[in-house]
Amino acid sequence: MFAQTSIVGVVGSDMPAGHINGLRSKGIDVTGIVTVQGGKTFHYDSSFDYDLSNRTTNKTELGVVAGFDPVIPKEYAKSDYVYLANNDPKQNIKILKFFEKPNLVVCDTIEFWINGSRDDVVKMIRLADGVVINDNEARLLCKEANLAKCAKKIMSWGSKFAIIKKGEDGAILFTNDSQVFPASAYFLDEIVDPTGAGDSFAGGFLGHLARRQRSDFLTMKEAVIYGNVMGSFAVEDFGVKRLLSITKDHVEDRYRKYCNLVQF
Amino acid sequence: MFAQTSIVGVVGSDMPAGHINGLRSKGIDVTGIVTVQGGKTFHYDSSFDYDLSNRTTNKTELGVVAGFDPVIPKEYAKSDYVYLANNDPKQNIKILKFFEKPNLVVCDTIEFWINGSRDDVVKMIRLADGVVINDNEARLLCKEANLAKCAKKIMSWGSKFAIIKKGEDGAILFTNDSQVFPASAYFLDEIVDPTGAGDSFAGGFLGHLARRQRSDFLTMKEAVIYGNVMGSFAVEDFGVKRLLSITKDHVEDRYRKYCNLVQF
Repeated sequence: MFAQTSIVGVVGSDMPAGHINGLRSKGIDVTGIVTVQGGKTFHYDSSFDYDLSNRTTNKTELGVVAGFDPVIPKEYAKSDYVYLANNDPKQNIKILKFFEKPNLVVCDTIEFWINGSRDDVVKMIRLADGVVINDNEARLLCKEANLAKCAKKIMSWGSKFAIIKKGEDGAILFTNDSQVFPASAYFLDEIVDPTGAGDSFAGGFLGHLARRQRSDFLTMKEAVIYGNVMGSFAVEDFGVKRLLSITKDHVEDRYRKYCNLVQF
Repeated sequence: MFAQTSIVGVVGSDMPAGHINGLRSKGIDVTGIVTVQGGKTFHYDSSFDYDLSNRTTNKTELGVVAGFDPVIPKEYAKSDYVYLANNDPKQNIKILKFFEKPNLVVCDTIEFWINGSRDDVVKMIRLADGVVINDNEARLLCKEANLAKCAKKIMSWGSKFAIIKKGEDGAILFTNDSQVFPASAYFLDEIVDPTGAGDSFAGGFLGHLARRQRSDFLTMKEAVIYGNVMGSFAVEDFGVKRLLSITKDHVEDRYRKYCNLVQF
Protein backbone atom coordinates (compact mmCIF):
# COMPACT_ATOMS: atom_id res chain seq x y z
CA MET A 1 0.00 0.00 0.00
CA PHE A 2 2.91 2.35 0.69
CA ALA A 3 6.20 0.98 -0.64
CA GLN A 4 7.78 -2.15 -2.14
CA THR A 5 7.48 -4.75 0.59
CA SER A 6 9.20 -8.08 1.16
CA ILE A 7 8.48 -10.66 3.80
CA VAL A 8 10.67 -13.12 5.73
CA GLY A 9 9.20 -16.10 7.52
CA VAL A 10 8.83 -19.81 7.92
CA VAL A 11 5.70 -21.95 7.45
CA GLY A 12 4.89 -25.63 7.40
CA SER A 13 3.50 -27.54 4.45
CA ASP A 14 0.08 -27.20 6.12
CA MET A 15 -0.02 -23.51 5.09
CA PRO A 16 -2.75 -23.07 2.44
CA ALA A 17 -1.18 -21.78 -0.80
CA GLY A 18 -3.99 -19.23 -1.08
CA HIS A 19 -2.64 -17.28 1.87
CA ILE A 20 0.75 -16.73 0.27
CA ASN A 21 -0.78 -16.10 -3.15
CA GLY A 22 -2.96 -13.44 -1.55
CA LEU A 23 0.13 -11.54 -0.39
CA ARG A 24 1.77 -12.01 -3.81
CA SER A 25 -1.34 -10.62 -5.49
CA LYS A 26 -0.81 -7.37 -3.58
CA GLY A 27 2.73 -7.07 -4.94
CA ILE A 28 4.52 -8.35 -1.85
CA ASP A 29 7.79 -10.17 -2.47
CA VAL A 30 7.31 -13.56 -0.78
CA THR A 31 10.59 -15.21 -1.79
CA GLY A 32 11.72 -14.90 1.83
CA ILE A 33 9.02 -17.30 3.03
CA VAL A 34 10.59 -20.69 3.70
CA THR A 35 8.32 -23.75 3.63
CA VAL A 36 9.44 -26.70 5.79
CA GLN A 37 8.06 -29.90 4.25
CA GLY A 38 6.19 -31.95 6.82
CA GLY A 39 6.45 -29.18 9.41
CA LYS A 40 3.59 -27.42 11.16
CA THR A 41 2.99 -23.69 10.82
CA PHE A 42 3.14 -21.55 13.98
CA HIS A 43 -0.25 -21.71 15.70
CA TYR A 44 -1.64 -19.28 18.20
CA ASP A 45 -4.91 -19.49 20.12
CA SER A 46 -6.28 -16.68 22.23
CA SER A 47 -9.49 -15.40 23.77
CA PHE A 48 -10.67 -11.85 24.17
CA ASP A 49 -12.67 -10.36 27.03
CA TYR A 50 -16.29 -9.62 26.22
CA ASP A 51 -15.33 -6.04 25.36
CA LEU A 52 -12.32 -7.15 23.22
CA SER A 53 -9.92 -5.07 25.31
CA ASN A 54 -7.96 -7.84 27.03
CA ARG A 55 -6.43 -10.80 25.25
CA THR A 56 -5.63 -14.09 26.97
CA THR A 57 -3.20 -16.44 25.28
CA ASN A 58 -4.49 -20.01 25.44
CA LYS A 59 -1.94 -21.78 23.32
CA THR A 60 1.27 -20.90 21.47
CA GLU A 61 2.58 -23.76 19.28
CA LEU A 62 5.83 -22.66 17.68
CA GLY A 63 5.91 -25.48 15.10
CA VAL A 64 8.52 -24.75 12.42
CA VAL A 65 9.41 -21.42 14.08
CA ALA A 66 11.16 -23.38 16.86
CA GLY A 67 14.02 -24.66 14.71
CA PHE A 68 14.12 -21.85 12.16
CA ASP A 69 17.57 -20.63 11.19
CA PRO A 70 16.69 -17.51 9.27
CA VAL A 71 18.36 -16.45 6.05
CA ILE A 72 17.04 -13.66 3.89
CA PRO A 73 17.10 -13.53 0.09
CA LYS A 74 20.08 -11.47 -1.16
CA GLU A 75 17.84 -8.94 -2.85
CA TYR A 76 16.33 -8.00 0.53
CA ALA A 77 19.64 -6.89 2.01
CA LYS A 78 19.43 -3.30 0.80
CA SER A 79 16.01 -2.68 2.39
CA ASP A 80 15.74 0.67 4.16
CA TYR A 81 12.90 -0.03 6.59
CA VAL A 82 12.85 -3.22 8.63
CA TYR A 83 10.04 -4.42 10.87
CA LEU A 84 10.85 -7.27 13.26
CA ALA A 85 7.44 -8.71 14.10
CA ASN A 86 6.61 -10.50 17.36
CA ASN A 87 8.74 -13.51 16.53
CA ASP A 88 11.59 -15.16 18.51
CA PRO A 89 13.83 -12.20 19.48
CA LYS A 90 16.97 -14.34 18.92
CA GLN A 91 15.86 -15.02 15.32
CA ASN A 92 14.97 -11.35 14.89
CA ILE A 93 18.46 -10.31 16.01
CA LYS A 94 19.95 -12.78 13.51
CA ILE A 95 17.68 -11.56 10.69
CA LEU A 96 18.69 -7.98 11.35
CA LYS A 97 22.36 -8.78 10.63
CA PHE A 98 21.53 -9.61 7.01
CA PHE A 99 20.44 -6.05 6.27
CA GLU A 100 23.26 -3.83 5.08
CA LYS A 101 22.33 -0.38 6.34
CA PRO A 102 18.62 0.04 7.13
CA ASN A 103 17.35 3.59 7.81
CA LEU A 104 14.96 2.45 10.48
CA VAL A 105 14.40 -0.76 12.41
CA VAL A 106 11.22 -1.23 14.44
CA CYS A 107 10.33 -4.26 16.55
CA ASP A 108 7.37 -5.68 18.43
CA THR A 109 7.14 -8.45 20.98
CA ILE A 110 4.53 -10.49 22.85
CA GLU A 111 3.89 -12.08 26.24
CA PHE A 112 5.33 -15.44 25.11
CA TRP A 113 8.81 -14.01 24.48
CA ILE A 114 8.71 -11.60 27.42
CA ASN A 115 8.01 -14.51 29.76
CA GLY A 116 10.46 -16.93 28.15
CA SER A 117 13.27 -14.80 26.66
CA ARG A 118 13.14 -11.39 28.32
CA ASP A 119 16.91 -10.80 28.02
CA ASP A 120 16.80 -11.42 24.27
CA VAL A 121 13.81 -9.09 23.95
CA VAL A 122 15.80 -6.31 25.65
CA LYS A 123 18.81 -7.10 23.43
CA MET A 124 16.60 -6.83 20.33
CA ILE A 125 15.21 -3.48 21.54
CA ARG A 126 18.79 -2.18 21.96
CA LEU A 127 19.38 -2.88 18.26
CA ALA A 128 16.13 -1.28 17.09
CA ASP A 129 15.34 2.39 16.49
CA GLY A 130 11.78 2.04 17.70
CA VAL A 131 9.37 -0.32 19.42
CA VAL A 132 5.65 -0.86 18.85
CA ILE A 133 4.09 -2.84 21.65
CA ASN A 134 0.70 -3.49 23.28
CA ASP A 135 -0.08 -1.68 26.54
CA ASN A 136 -0.31 -4.85 28.63
CA GLU A 137 2.83 -6.30 27.10
CA ALA A 138 4.69 -3.06 27.77
CA ARG A 139 3.59 -3.31 31.42
CA LEU A 140 4.72 -6.93 31.61
CA LEU A 141 8.06 -6.20 29.96
CA CYS A 142 8.81 -3.12 32.08
CA LYS A 143 7.26 -4.34 35.35
CA GLU A 144 5.56 -0.95 35.58
CA ALA A 145 1.87 0.06 35.34
CA ASN A 146 2.27 3.64 34.10
CA LEU A 147 2.62 3.67 30.30
CA ALA A 148 4.73 6.83 30.17
CA LYS A 149 7.22 5.17 32.52
CA CYS A 150 7.13 1.98 30.43
CA ALA A 151 8.01 4.00 27.34
CA LYS A 152 10.85 5.74 29.18
CA LYS A 153 12.23 2.39 30.31
CA ILE A 154 12.08 0.96 26.78
CA MET A 155 13.87 4.04 25.44
CA SER A 156 16.48 3.78 28.20
CA TRP A 157 17.48 0.48 26.56
CA GLY A 158 18.42 2.37 23.41
CA SER A 159 15.34 2.71 21.23
CA LYS A 160 14.61 6.27 20.02
CA PHE A 161 10.87 5.97 20.24
CA ALA A 162 8.19 3.70 21.63
CA ILE A 163 4.62 3.36 20.46
CA ILE A 164 2.23 1.85 22.96
CA LYS A 165 -0.82 0.34 21.28
CA LYS A 166 -4.08 0.34 23.25
CA GLY A 167 -6.40 -1.60 20.95
CA GLU A 168 -9.66 0.25 20.31
CA ASP A 169 -8.37 3.09 22.52
CA GLY A 170 -5.70 4.05 20.02
CA ALA A 171 -1.96 4.45 20.52
CA ILE A 172 0.57 6.78 22.12
CA LEU A 173 3.88 7.70 20.51
CA PHE A 174 6.72 8.65 22.87
CA THR A 175 10.11 9.90 21.67
CA ASN A 176 13.45 10.08 23.46
CA ASP A 177 13.38 13.88 23.21
CA SER A 178 10.27 13.87 25.44
CA GLN A 179 7.64 14.39 22.77
CA VAL A 180 4.28 12.64 23.13
CA PHE A 181 1.45 12.05 20.67
CA PRO A 182 -1.71 10.28 21.85
CA ALA A 183 -4.01 9.26 18.98
CA SER A 184 -7.53 7.85 19.21
CA ALA A 185 -8.26 4.76 17.17
CA TYR A 186 -10.35 5.14 14.01
CA PHE A 187 -13.89 4.66 15.22
CA LEU A 188 -15.70 1.52 14.03
CA ASP A 189 -19.26 0.49 14.87
CA GLU A 190 -18.34 -3.16 14.76
CA ILE A 191 -15.14 -5.16 15.25
CA VAL A 192 -14.92 -8.72 13.90
CA ASP A 193 -11.52 -9.85 15.21
CA PRO A 194 -8.75 -7.72 16.77
CA THR A 195 -6.06 -10.30 15.92
CA GLY A 196 -3.49 -8.82 13.56
CA ALA A 197 -4.40 -5.19 14.29
CA GLY A 198 -0.98 -4.57 15.83
CA ASP A 199 0.97 -5.90 12.85
CA SER A 200 -1.25 -3.93 10.49
CA PHE A 201 -0.60 -0.86 12.60
CA ALA A 202 3.15 -1.45 12.32
CA GLY A 203 2.81 -1.95 8.55
CA GLY A 204 0.95 1.32 8.06
CA PHE A 205 3.35 3.15 10.36
CA LEU A 206 6.52 1.91 8.64
CA GLY A 207 4.92 2.10 5.20
CA HIS A 208 4.25 5.80 5.54
CA LEU A 209 7.78 6.52 6.82
CA ALA A 210 9.23 4.44 3.97
CA ARG A 211 7.34 6.29 1.25
CA ARG A 212 8.24 9.67 2.77
CA GLN A 213 11.85 8.54 3.40
CA ARG A 214 11.93 10.47 6.67
CA SER A 215 11.11 9.99 10.31
CA ASP A 216 10.88 13.44 11.89
CA PHE A 217 8.21 13.88 14.58
CA LEU A 218 5.49 15.26 12.27
CA THR A 219 5.95 12.40 9.77
CA MET A 220 5.91 9.91 12.65
CA LYS A 221 2.62 11.40 13.88
CA GLU A 222 1.08 10.99 10.40
CA ALA A 223 2.52 7.47 10.35
CA VAL A 224 0.76 6.67 13.65
CA ILE A 225 -2.52 7.69 12.01
CA TYR A 226 -1.78 5.49 8.98
CA GLY A 227 -1.06 2.74 11.49
CA ASN A 228 -4.47 3.30 13.08
CA VAL A 229 -6.08 3.27 9.65
CA MET A 230 -4.47 -0.04 8.63
CA GLY A 231 -5.34 -1.56 12.02
CA SER A 232 -8.96 -0.46 11.57
CA PHE A 233 -9.17 -2.35 8.27
CA ALA A 234 -7.53 -5.46 9.75
CA VAL A 235 -10.17 -5.85 12.48
CA GLU A 236 -13.09 -5.67 10.06
CA ASP A 237 -12.66 -9.33 9.11
CA PHE A 238 -10.65 -12.42 10.07
CA GLY A 239 -7.00 -12.81 9.08
CA VAL A 240 -5.83 -10.63 6.19
CA LYS A 241 -9.17 -10.94 4.38
CA ARG A 242 -10.12 -7.28 4.59
CA LEU A 243 -6.57 -6.08 3.89
CA LEU A 244 -6.51 -8.08 0.66
CA SER A 245 -9.75 -6.46 -0.50
CA ILE A 246 -8.76 -2.79 -0.11
CA THR A 247 -6.89 -0.41 -2.42
CA LYS A 248 -4.68 2.64 -1.83
CA ASP A 249 -7.78 4.79 -2.34
CA HIS A 250 -9.51 3.11 0.58
CA VAL A 251 -6.50 3.87 2.73
CA GLU A 252 -6.28 7.54 1.78
CA ASP A 253 -10.04 7.90 2.06
CA ARG A 254 -10.04 6.51 5.59
CA TYR A 255 -7.08 8.73 6.53
CA ARG A 256 -9.14 11.77 5.48
CA LYS A 257 -12.16 10.44 7.38
CA TYR A 258 -9.98 10.01 10.44
CA CYS A 259 -8.83 13.63 10.17
CA ASN A 260 -12.44 14.81 10.04
CA LEU A 261 -13.43 12.52 12.88
CA VAL A 262 -10.91 13.85 15.40
CA GLN A 263 -10.96 17.50 14.26
CA PHE A 264 -12.49 20.09 16.59
CA MET B 1 -14.18 28.47 35.80
CA PHE B 2 -16.74 28.92 33.02
CA ALA B 3 -20.04 30.34 34.34
CA GLN B 4 -21.89 31.18 37.56
CA THR B 5 -22.33 27.81 39.27
CA SER B 6 -24.62 26.64 42.06
CA ILE B 7 -24.63 23.33 43.84
CA VAL B 8 -27.41 21.18 45.37
CA GLY B 9 -26.63 18.43 47.84
CA VAL B 10 -26.89 17.00 51.30
CA VAL B 11 -24.13 16.37 53.83
CA GLY B 12 -23.92 15.29 57.45
CA SER B 13 -22.48 17.35 60.29
CA ASP B 14 -19.28 15.31 59.88
CA MET B 15 -18.48 17.28 56.69
CA PRO B 16 -15.42 19.47 57.36
CA ALA B 17 -16.36 23.13 56.90
CA GLY B 18 -13.18 23.66 54.88
CA HIS B 19 -14.54 21.58 52.00
CA ILE B 20 -17.60 23.81 51.54
CA ASN B 21 -15.59 26.97 52.11
CA GLY B 22 -13.22 25.82 49.38
CA LEU B 23 -16.09 25.73 46.89
CA ARG B 24 -17.36 29.11 48.12
CA SER B 25 -13.89 30.60 47.65
CA LYS B 26 -14.14 29.72 43.94
CA GLY B 27 -17.40 31.70 43.63
CA ILE B 28 -19.71 28.68 43.75
CA ASP B 29 -23.13 29.31 45.27
CA VAL B 30 -23.39 26.71 48.05
CA THR B 31 -26.76 27.76 49.54
CA GLY B 32 -28.23 24.56 48.03
CA ILE B 33 -26.11 22.33 50.30
CA VAL B 34 -28.28 21.04 53.15
CA THR B 35 -26.53 19.91 56.35
CA VAL B 36 -28.34 17.26 58.39
CA GLN B 37 -27.29 17.63 62.02
CA GLY B 38 -26.09 14.33 63.47
CA GLY B 39 -26.23 12.66 60.03
CA LYS B 40 -23.35 11.01 58.19
CA THR B 41 -22.12 12.25 54.82
CA PHE B 42 -22.31 9.87 51.85
CA HIS B 43 -19.22 7.65 51.90
CA TYR B 44 -17.78 5.71 49.03
CA ASP B 45 -14.84 3.31 49.05
CA SER B 46 -13.30 1.85 45.92
CA SER B 47 -10.15 0.22 44.64
CA PHE B 48 -8.45 0.60 41.30
CA ASP B 49 -6.59 -2.02 39.28
CA TYR B 50 -2.84 -1.61 39.21
CA ASP B 51 -3.13 0.33 35.96
CA LEU B 52 -6.00 2.52 37.28
CA SER B 53 -8.28 1.50 34.42
CA ASN B 54 -10.85 -0.57 36.34
CA ARG B 55 -12.59 0.58 39.50
CA THR B 56 -14.09 -1.84 42.00
CA THR B 57 -16.65 -0.47 44.45
CA ASN B 58 -15.97 -1.82 47.93
CA LYS B 59 -18.51 0.13 49.94
CA THR B 60 -21.27 2.64 49.26
CA GLU B 61 -22.75 4.15 52.45
CA LEU B 62 -25.59 6.48 51.51
CA GLY B 63 -25.79 8.18 54.94
CA VAL B 64 -27.92 11.33 54.71
CA VAL B 65 -28.46 10.81 50.96
CA ALA B 66 -30.81 7.92 51.81
CA GLY B 67 -33.58 10.05 53.31
CA PHE B 68 -32.91 13.24 51.35
CA ASP B 69 -35.99 15.04 50.07
CA PRO B 70 -34.38 17.58 47.75
CA VAL B 71 -35.50 21.20 47.51
CA ILE B 72 -33.49 23.80 45.64
CA PRO B 73 -33.08 27.46 46.60
CA LYS B 74 -35.51 29.67 44.67
CA GLU B 75 -32.72 31.59 43.01
CA TYR B 76 -31.51 28.40 41.33
CA ALA B 77 -34.76 27.83 39.45
CA LYS B 78 -33.84 29.91 36.41
CA SER B 79 -30.59 28.02 35.77
CA ASP B 80 -29.99 27.20 32.11
CA TYR B 81 -27.62 24.25 32.39
CA VAL B 82 -28.32 21.45 34.82
CA TYR B 83 -26.01 18.54 35.65
CA LEU B 84 -27.54 15.63 37.56
CA ALA B 85 -24.53 13.91 39.09
CA ASN B 86 -24.38 10.20 39.94
CA ASN B 87 -26.85 10.51 42.80
CA ASP B 88 -30.12 8.64 43.45
CA PRO B 89 -31.97 8.86 40.10
CA LYS B 90 -35.30 9.32 41.93
CA GLN B 91 -33.90 12.37 43.73
CA ASN B 92 -32.40 13.64 40.49
CA ILE B 93 -35.81 13.41 38.78
CA LYS B 94 -37.35 15.36 41.67
CA ILE B 95 -34.60 18.01 41.60
CA LEU B 96 -35.11 18.50 37.88
CA LYS B 97 -38.75 19.56 38.43
CA PHE B 98 -37.65 22.65 40.36
CA PHE B 99 -35.92 24.14 37.33
CA GLU B 100 -38.19 26.31 35.23
CA LYS B 101 -36.88 25.91 31.72
CA PRO B 102 -33.29 24.68 31.49
CA ASN B 103 -31.57 24.79 28.09
CA LEU B 104 -29.73 21.57 28.66
CA VAL B 105 -29.90 18.77 31.20
CA VAL B 106 -27.10 16.21 31.44
CA CYS B 107 -26.96 13.25 33.80
CA ASP B 108 -24.49 10.61 34.95
CA THR B 109 -25.02 7.39 36.87
CA ILE B 110 -22.99 4.65 38.57
CA GLU B 111 -23.02 0.91 39.16
CA PHE B 112 -24.83 1.29 42.51
CA TRP B 113 -27.95 2.83 40.93
CA ILE B 114 -27.82 0.68 37.80
CA ASN B 115 -27.84 -2.44 39.96
CA GLY B 116 -30.44 -1.19 42.45
CA SER B 117 -32.70 1.25 40.53
CA ARG B 118 -32.23 0.58 36.82
CA ASP B 119 -35.81 1.64 35.92
CA ASP B 120 -35.33 5.00 37.60
CA VAL B 121 -32.00 5.46 35.84
CA VAL B 122 -33.72 4.93 32.48
CA LYS B 123 -36.53 7.31 33.52
CA MET B 124 -33.95 9.97 34.40
CA ILE B 125 -32.21 9.50 31.04
CA ARG B 126 -35.56 10.02 29.27
CA LEU B 127 -35.82 13.45 30.94
CA ALA B 128 -32.23 14.48 30.14
CA ASP B 129 -30.80 15.90 26.92
CA GLY B 130 -27.52 14.09 27.32
CA VAL B 131 -25.75 11.43 29.34
CA VAL B 132 -22.12 11.24 30.45
CA ILE B 133 -21.22 7.80 31.71
CA ASN B 134 -18.20 5.54 32.25
CA ASP B 135 -17.53 2.81 29.68
CA ASN B 136 -18.05 -0.07 32.09
CA GLU B 137 -21.19 1.47 33.55
CA ALA B 138 -22.58 2.03 30.05
CA ARG B 139 -21.96 -1.67 29.36
CA LEU B 140 -23.66 -2.67 32.61
CA LEU B 141 -26.62 -0.37 32.01
CA CYS B 142 -27.12 -1.42 28.39
CA LYS B 143 -26.19 -5.11 28.76
CA GLU B 144 -24.02 -4.67 25.68
CA ALA B 145 -20.21 -4.77 25.23
CA ASN B 146 -19.91 -2.54 22.13
CA LEU B 147 -19.77 1.13 23.17
CA ALA B 148 -21.35 2.43 19.96
CA LYS B 149 -24.32 0.16 20.57
CA CYS B 150 -24.48 1.26 24.22
CA ALA B 151 -24.66 4.88 23.09
CA LYS B 152 -27.39 4.05 20.57
CA LYS B 153 -29.39 2.29 23.26
CA ILE B 154 -29.07 5.24 25.66
CA MET B 155 -30.17 7.62 22.91
CA SER B 156 -33.10 5.34 22.05
CA TRP B 157 -34.40 6.16 25.54
CA GLY B 158 -34.67 9.82 24.55
CA SER B 159 -31.31 11.49 25.22
CA LYS B 160 -29.90 13.49 22.29
CA PHE B 161 -26.30 12.61 22.95
CA ALA B 162 -24.21 10.25 25.02
CA ILE B 163 -20.62 10.70 26.10
CA ILE B 164 -18.81 7.55 27.09
CA LYS B 165 -15.86 8.24 29.36
CA LYS B 166 -12.91 5.86 29.18
CA GLY B 167 -10.66 7.14 31.97
CA GLU B 168 -7.10 7.72 30.77
CA ASP B 169 -8.17 6.60 27.28
CA GLY B 170 -10.35 9.68 26.79
CA ALA B 171 -14.01 9.90 25.82
CA ILE B 172 -16.31 9.41 22.84
CA LEU B 173 -19.22 11.71 22.05
CA PHE B 174 -22.14 10.17 20.13
CA THR B 175 -25.12 12.21 18.89
CA ASN B 176 -28.57 11.08 17.80
CA ASP B 177 -27.87 12.34 14.27
CA SER B 178 -25.07 9.73 14.01
CA GLN B 179 -22.10 11.98 14.60
CA VAL B 180 -19.15 10.62 16.55
CA PHE B 181 -16.18 12.35 18.16
CA PRO B 182 -13.49 10.26 19.87
CA ALA B 183 -11.06 12.33 21.95
CA SER B 184 -7.85 11.19 23.63
CA ALA B 185 -7.39 12.17 27.25
CA TYR B 186 -4.92 14.93 28.05
CA PHE B 187 -1.67 13.10 28.57
CA LEU B 188 -0.23 13.08 32.11
CA ASP B 189 2.99 11.43 33.27
CA GLU B 190 1.54 10.70 36.67
CA ILE B 191 -1.98 10.19 38.05
CA VAL B 192 -2.58 10.55 41.79
CA ASP B 193 -6.25 9.55 42.08
CA PRO B 194 -8.81 9.07 39.28
CA THR B 195 -11.77 9.60 41.66
CA GLY B 196 -13.78 12.65 40.63
CA ALA B 197 -12.40 12.79 37.09
CA GLY B 198 -15.84 12.04 35.65
CA ASP B 199 -17.61 14.84 37.55
CA SER B 200 -14.84 17.24 36.63
CA PHE B 201 -15.23 16.17 33.01
CA ALA B 202 -18.97 16.89 33.22
CA GLY B 203 -18.28 20.28 34.82
CA GLY B 204 -15.88 21.34 32.08
CA PHE B 205 -18.22 20.02 29.39
CA LEU B 206 -21.31 21.82 30.70
CA GLY B 207 -19.32 24.89 31.71
CA HIS B 208 -18.09 25.46 28.16
CA LEU B 209 -21.60 25.01 26.69
CA ALA B 210 -23.00 27.39 29.33
CA ARG B 211 -20.53 30.17 28.59
CA ARG B 212 -21.07 29.76 24.84
CA GLN B 213 -24.85 29.44 25.30
CA ARG B 214 -25.02 26.90 22.51
CA SER B 215 -24.74 23.17 22.01
CA ASP B 216 -24.14 22.57 18.29
CA PHE B 217 -21.79 19.72 17.40
CA LEU B 218 -18.64 21.85 17.09
CA THR B 219 -19.22 23.51 20.48
CA MET B 220 -19.92 20.10 22.00
CA LYS B 221 -16.61 18.82 20.62
CA GLU B 222 -14.76 21.75 22.19
CA ALA B 223 -16.71 21.07 25.40
CA VAL B 224 -15.51 17.45 25.41
CA ILE B 225 -11.93 18.76 25.30
CA TYR B 226 -12.64 21.16 28.19
CA GLY B 227 -14.09 18.14 29.97
CA ASN B 228 -10.84 16.23 29.38
CA VAL B 229 -8.86 19.23 30.60
CA MET B 230 -10.84 19.55 33.85
CA GLY B 231 -10.64 15.79 34.40
CA SER B 232 -6.87 15.94 33.92
CA PHE B 233 -6.56 18.52 36.71
CA ALA B 234 -8.83 16.53 39.03
CA VAL B 235 -6.63 13.43 38.93
CA GLU B 236 -3.45 15.31 39.80
CA ASP B 237 -4.35 15.27 43.49
CA PHE B 238 -6.90 13.84 45.92
CA GLY B 239 -10.42 15.28 46.16
CA VAL B 240 -10.90 18.79 44.78
CA LYS B 241 -7.47 19.90 46.00
CA ARG B 242 -5.97 20.52 42.57
CA LEU B 243 -9.18 22.09 41.22
CA LEU B 244 -9.17 24.63 44.06
CA SER B 245 -5.60 25.65 43.23
CA ILE B 246 -6.04 26.44 39.53
CA THR B 247 -7.22 29.56 37.71
CA LYS B 248 -8.98 30.20 34.40
CA ASP B 249 -5.55 30.78 32.86
CA HIS B 250 -4.44 27.28 33.82
CA VAL B 251 -7.55 25.89 32.11
CA GLU B 252 -7.06 27.83 28.87
CA ASP B 253 -3.36 27.08 28.87
CA ARG B 254 -3.98 23.34 29.18
CA TYR B 255 -6.66 23.53 26.45
CA ARG B 256 -4.04 25.02 24.12
CA LYS B 257 -1.51 22.38 25.17
CA TYR B 258 -4.09 19.71 24.43
CA CYS B 259 -4.61 21.14 20.93
CA ASN B 260 -0.85 21.01 20.28
CA LEU B 261 -0.58 17.54 21.74
CA VAL B 262 -3.14 15.91 19.43
CA GLN B 263 -2.39 17.97 16.31
CA PHE B 264 -0.75 16.21 13.36
